[in-house]
Amino acid sequence: MLEQMGIAAKAASYKLAQLSGREKNQVLEKIADYLEAQTDSILSANAQDLEEARSNGLSEALLDRLALNPARLKSIADDVRQVCKLADPVGQVIDGGQLDSGLRIERRRVPLGVVGVIYEARPNVTVDVATLCLKTGNAAILRGGKETWRTNAATVKVIQQALEESGIPAGAVQAIESPDRALVNEMLRMDKYIDMLIPRGGAGLHKLCREQSTIPVITGGIGVCHIYVDDSAEFDPALKIIVNAKTQRPSTCNTVETLLVNRTIADTFLPVLSQQMAESGVTLHADADALTTLQKGPASVLPVQVQQYDDEYLSLDLNVKLVDGLDDAIAHIRLHGTQHSDAILTRTLRNADRFINEVDSSAVYVNASTRFTDGAQFGLGAEVAVSTQKLHARGPMGLEALTTYKWIGFGDDTVRA
Amino acid sequence: MLEQMGIAAKAASYKLAQLSGREKNQVLEKIADYLEAQTDSILSANAQDLEEARSNGLSEALLDRLALNPARLKSIADDVRQVCKLADPVGQVIDGGQLDSGLRIERRRVPLGVVGVIYEARPNVTVDVATLCLKTGNAAILRGGKETWRTNAATVKVIQQALEESGIPAGAVQAIESPDRALVNEMLRMDKYIDMLIPRGGAGLHKLCREQSTIPVITGGIGVCHIYVDDSAEFDPALKIIVNAKTQRPSTCNTVETLLVNRTIADTFLPVLSQQMAESGVTLHADADALTTLQKGPASVLPVQVQQYDDEYLSLDLNVKLVDGLDDAIAHIRLHGTQHSDAILTRTLRNADRFINEVDSSAVYVNASTRFTDGAQFGLGAEVAVSTQKLHARGPMGLEALTTYKWIGFGDDTVRA
Repeated sequence: MLEQMGIAAKAASYKLAQLSGREKNQVLEKIADYLEAQTDSILSANAQDLEEARSNGLSEALLDRLALNPARLKSIADDVRQVCKLADPVGQVIDGGQLDSGLRIERRRVPLGVVGVIYEARPNVTVDVATLCLKTGNAAILRGGKETWRTNAATVKVIQQALEESGIPAGAVQAIESPDRALVNEMLRMDKYIDMLIPRGGAGLHKLCREQSTIPVITGGIGVCHIYVDDSAEFDPALKIIVNAKTQRPSTCNTVETLLVNRTIADTFLPVLSQQMAESGVTLHADADALTTLQKGPASVLPVQVQQYDDEYLSLDLNVKLVDGLDDAIAHIRLHGTQHSDAILTRTLRNADRFINEVDSSAVYVNASTRFTDGAQFGLGAEVAVSTQKLHARGPMGLEALTTYKWIGFGDDTVRA
Repeated sequence: MLEQMGIAAKAASYKLAQLSGREKNQVLEKIADYLEAQTDSILSANAQDLEEARSNGLSEALLDRLALNPARLKSIADDVRQVCKLADPVGQVIDGGQLDSGLRIERRRVPLGVVGVIYEARPNVTVDVATLCLKTGNAAILRGGKETWRTNAATVKVIQQALEESGIPAGAVQAIESPDRALVNEMLRMDKYIDMLIPRGGAGLHKLCREQSTIPVITGGIGVCHIYVDDSAEFDPALKIIVNAKTQRPSTCNTVETLLVNRTIADTFLPVLSQQMAESGVTLHADADALTTLQKGPASVLPVQVQQYDDEYLSLDLNVKLVDGLDDAIAHIRLHGTQHSDAILTRTLRNADRFINEVDSSAVYVNASTRFTDGAQFGLGAEVAVSTQKLHARGPMGLEALTTYKWIGFGDDTVRA
């Protein structure tokens, strides 16, 4: 079955690559309209998914993440219309020139071909990913969370109807309509048909893809983010940034998880930190050196477990560790970080420069919150994923990350000397 | 042992990333000088490798590929000095701007970190790859062909001496000094230390890496290249391009392997083709339709075997197949090509455009030889490899392909709203 999907996707990708920006936007508009017009079929599939999820004992919080309603579908359709407004990177000439031989060359941006996406839970991702792939002329093979496979299938059916009525093969957007996990493993070996694989989920999914996939994979999305409070930091702005980075939306991958505090300011900074964290409802997990001081403050504090330096909390919990200075902070980040987002709070130019240059992360910040690592914040218009690997795309991935380029050589019966 | 190499390489990569272009060039100059000054140790290791290779029955042609002498070492050293002259892409600001929040962001080009390269046979690749990695601030872990492991080890020893005398850890360039093949499999799982893996060798090596590596891999280098002779092609220029693409250096991956001829010109074109191929010493492998006509001409001709459409000859052999037109030609290339380099010979603008847009290869040519797909020809200055995949880099890979970027956010105590 997957082989047939691969063949259909590849064939559709050849068609999609030839569409103009206007033609692609027309399809996207139609998809947005149909998502609103055909709410019933999607909501009834979603109701079945929710019923099964509830009987499987999923929490109300998780059920809410899976649930669709007319307002949410409207919002999803509006997001599709927003994507229409973005500039189409396909066809852009990156560079070019004339060679000594007389050959004129040009490097032109083109779609990747077929993009595979494996994601968990939230059903809006189906439309989101399909839309961004279509906008860039790519076919998509989607494998959504098993809890919402009926919702995803119903959504893709609506998308396919809009595609076919626009003269585009349904193979352009396909979903694996089965919760069978073995199909994921099969999908990971489809390098003959899928050009890029994007896993969107937890660390386990990323590890599985890295180890099993024969398709080039973009891994990321895991953020053990740090803020280093330098001895020259001003306390009030520092606290403001820490509160923002920890509490603005704790469940996101760009939330700070570990605070590294210069030892020389511990006696003065930790008491005000404890005060602020108590107000913000943050529980601290402190190393032995910080613990004594923090235990005198109002914030909840526990001794940190070593493993906690390597894991995301994604909650109102924050590690606090004293470090001997910038070198020590950088060493900690290299050892425990996930190359996502890390910040320094300092008033010292040389320390800011060294942090920028020596911390090997997708995004490094000076006197700013780690929460900025986001496609919309960075002005990319949309975000396919956040990459923490170094090949192809790093950090928030916009439309450009869904393209590659080809070299075009224009000759006048030109041969190599 | 490999784990230790990985740790050393990662540590060295942090040092290398901080070097200025001038500092890196000073190291490269020293390496070039030492390669010339310490010819003896390298040549004596090479002599041992050659002796063992001869006793293993390697052909004289292959032995010549493995052999070094003072003139070849001088030429290798001169190549290093050429790399010094190239612009350093590290530190380049790709783009940036100020966000509505006030945060100023910048996308800055930085080294990848640690590059792993697995290559076969020719010992000049050791210096070549090490030099390009150092130029871009990357550490390198090299695994050369088992036939020249002593030569590679001796070469790396000279490089390491130059590094250490420049205050750079020897871990910046390391070779796996053992012909043991099990180490390759171990290397492929070192994603903790190696950021990018480049296999340079045959299809088997690329397949192994794609299937076994947990490190992002750049595959490529396999070229089943096509030339489509359109019905509007002029015969003399067409023959000139075919001769160049087939005979200028038949053992390279950008050599043409299959000629697709528009059926409507077969009766007139095939006789002149046969004449020219006979003069150029090319053996033709023809499909049933072309065979009858070609058998009347002077060139050697055999019936093509289906498998021959999918394999590189890398010799003076050329498939000839009649096609019904452009669509048929494109369909053949999609089925049998390796997305390397393909050309159309035509005088029809619309056919040229369609070929460019619809053939999904790293390089597509109009009225030019496929032999141009090469870093030096494309003005990249140097070539690390030729990628036929779509992520990160496509076609000839220059220095830029050995870099990634990081996002830098400069705040003024800036938080996300």
